[in-house]
Amino acid sequence: MNGADPTPTPPTVRDLGVRARQAARTLRSLDTAQKQAALHRLAQELHAHADQILGANARDVQQAEAAGLPAAMLDRLRLSPAALAALALDVQAVAALPDPVGERTAARTLPSGVRVSQLRVPLGVLGVIYESRPNVTVDVAALALMTGNAVILRGGKETVHTNAALESCIHAALAACGLPAGAVQVIHDPDRERVRDLLRLDDLVDAIIPRGGAGLHRYCVENATVPVIVGGIGVVHVYLDESFTRDPADVQRAAELLVNAKVQKPSACNALDTLLVHRGALPALPAIAGALVREGVDLRADPASLEVLHAAGLPATPAADTDYGQEFLALTASLRTVDSLEEALDFIAAHGNHTDVILTRDDAQARRFVQDVDSAAVMVNASPRFNDGGQLGLGAEVAISTQKLHARGPMGLRELTTTKWVVEGDGHVRA
Amino acid sequence: MNGADPTPTPPTVRDLGVRARQAARTLRSLDTAQKQAALHRLAQELHAHADQILGANARDVQQAEAAGLPAAMLDRLRLSPAALAALALDVQAVAALPDPVGERTAARTLPSGVRVSQLRVPLGVLGVIYESRPNVTVDVAALALMTGNAVILRGGKETVHTNAALESCIHAALAACGLPAGAVQVIHDPDRERVRDLLRLDDLVDAIIPRGGAGLHRYCVENATVPVIVGGIGVVHVYLDESFTRDPADVQRAAELLVNAKVQKPSACNALDTLLVHRGALPALPAIAGALVREGVDLRADPASLEVLHAAGLPATPAADTDYGQEFLALTASLRTVDSLEEALDFIAAHGNHTDVILTRDDAQARRFVQDVDSAAVMVNASPRFNDGGQLGLGAEVAISTQKLHARGPMGLRELTTTKWVVEGDGHVRA
Repeated sequence: MNGADPTPTPPTVRDLGVRARQAARTLRSLDTAQKQAALHRLAQELHAHADQILGANARDVQQAEAAGLPAAMLDRLRLSPAALAALALDVQAVAALPDPVGERTAARTLPSGVRVSQLRVPLGVLGVIYESRPNVTVDVAALALMTGNAVILRGGKETVHTNAALESCIHAALAACGLPAGAVQVIHDPDRERVRDLLRLDDLVDAIIPRGGAGLHRYCVENATVPVIVGGIGVVHVYLDESFTRDPADVQRAAELLVNAKVQKPSACNALDTLLVHRGALPALPAIAGALVREGVDLRADPASLEVLHAAGLPATPAADTDYGQEFLALTASLRTVDSLEEALDFIAAHGNHTDVILTRDDAQARRFVQDVDSAAVMVNASPRFNDGGQLGLGAEVAISTQKLHARGPMGLRELTTTKWVVEGDGHVRA
Repeated sequence: MNGADPTPTPPTVRDLGVRARQAARTLRSLDTAQKQAALHRLAQELHAHADQILGANARDVQQAEAAGLPAAMLDRLRLSPAALAALALDVQAVAALPDPVGERTAARTLPSGVRVSQLRVPLGVLGVIYESRPNVTVDVAALALMTGNAVILRGGKETVHTNAALESCIHAALAACGLPAGAVQVIHDPDRERVRDLLRLDDLVDAIIPRGGAGLHRYCVENATVPVIVGGIGVVHVYLDESFTRDPADVQRAAELLVNAKVQKPSACNALDTLLVHRGALPALPAIAGALVREGVDLRADPASLEVLHAAGLPATPAADTDYGQEFLALTASLRTVDSLEEALDFIAAHGNHTDVILTRDDAQARRFVQDVDSAAVMVNASPRFNDGGQLGLGAEVAISTQKLHARGPMGLRELTTTKWVVEGDGHVRA
């Protein structure tokens, strides 16, 4: 007899897909209380295994430091005891959200006597592809479980130890509640071909949700046969009308709003990229741009606004064409002078898709802006930072979609569900 | 001077996309009355140019006959005066449907005082790829116009003359109403590469809707970077429980329902493919299957049901594995005996996605079936033929989706729209 057992072959991505589909059949029949129990158990497991998780995370961080990863990436990778505790609280918060599954809509009795309705049900199997933040592993698992979806997760290769520790907690919680391990599965093989395998599993996976930079989203769109919900990338415009600069209090409001838009979280997709300034508002620009400059924002300006800024002694550099329609994700913003609302709308039509704001005291302008701008979120006199699941009252957010099909803007629990038609008769046939 | 003008270069598919996007900006601001006026004008143009359209269609039919196209295809291609009149009526019926654009949902005032809502808006630019039915050209143009979408149409190469004549009517109607020609454009170049061009126009086109056979849908899924709404293909099961065979009136109902399901329109995607028979229902099978046989249905049966049919003197052949999970689109159906509801559910989980029906007198079984079956439509004691936009009260149908994202089942006007978030404040910033 040979001494050692043969090493088991690791499951293929297709194997994970088959298990996920089986698990999805169990998950879609769970009631809300069963799903809540699993989430509460998951929160307990995270507390109980905090030492293992933080130890695994320390290994990931150590390896990432040794590999010379940039500080911003290390930041995203690092899990503190406080962050882990917050993650467990997030899981419990998801359990407290209203469960969209089981809702009936469009119910009616047809003239034939047949009763029809649409029943809200889970999507089925999700594939989520993300980068270095390990909190996504738990967040997405919780949102998927609460909506009765199975999920296949593919995190960054830098977080392999942390994700394995988190997956153990998730599987412990599932097992404790009698739920199949196929409900939440992690692809461990770091080979990028495994991402491609997942993207092409259209007979088993119902939707792919990428969470990461523009390159990841493009890779998914180019390679997927599974439907992809694209998001996370987007250019944010604020159009400052002359009417919002007549009252000094409005100028002050505009300055505060733009600082909020640009500085609160420059790495966020809903942060300001381009300020469009009506020519009549240029006199107020120094007061407004000055506030941005004091916060360290690098301004790239068109000739007319550049002249005004320089005349006021404010630093700014000439904008290149590539500074427009550009998502900066940093303390940089571009400025552009326009002669009219229509010119601003044309500019946004050519460069926008995510969040666009008008600052105006003219209601007709506001209505025209809301009507014409075709972005995930259109705002009047409010910071673009409100384009966020929590801010818009969704309670939790799995991603922000910039496409138009299925979900647009922040995706909460409802966006992880679909409907099926239910038709009930008494032997009815179609006439 | 040279005598002749140079032949103008035909527009590329990207050119059409750019024009469509420009047109979409105009269309999304139209009110309902403007859209209705364009549709009524289109109906008038179809009447006024009936001779040209029927003449163009006669040329297409003649060429198709000369090319030896099968009779079924000729049937789909042929436009009679009555069919053209019906088409014009359909356009007017679309104009009478409720306009989903402009609806506000999820309106609330956040604790900060910011007002948020979701505003229903057109998708933007649609790409619709279809085969030989020229009525689709007008139907889809009408549905797109009514929802404020621009559309790029790509019909079958057999219908090139008919489609050109229909496009002229559509453009005449658009021009008469001051609407841009880019609202409805037809790709005339028969090269299949143009389909690929359209499928990859993800910066300009918001959704692709294929209408045709499984091969067309697969081609779109494999090649598109634009999101595709897949549909049109699907397997339909009816599960006959023993409880629906106890009363002779129910046996009669089951026979009528199955004839309706299979014979009313065998080429439809909602026609019966596989009958699952509970073993306890086998004694009633001759009465039920006999009705199908009398209508000319070719039955392919598993051993247990085959024995019952042959004992009753009914013709049937042994089913092969490929007769299950198969969309026949013809007067053919497969039969399979199961020992329990759970076995039927396992079978449907492995083979279903479109429309699945249970015939039962047991309410608990009916609830379990509705809960477990994950198809676009799930039915109790009703013909699968009810899975249709008209039957379900949508008023019109652009396609039937079998995917889960965005739209599932029949797609009406609402499914050609999306939402955008509208946020209104008074200089509010995010805390």
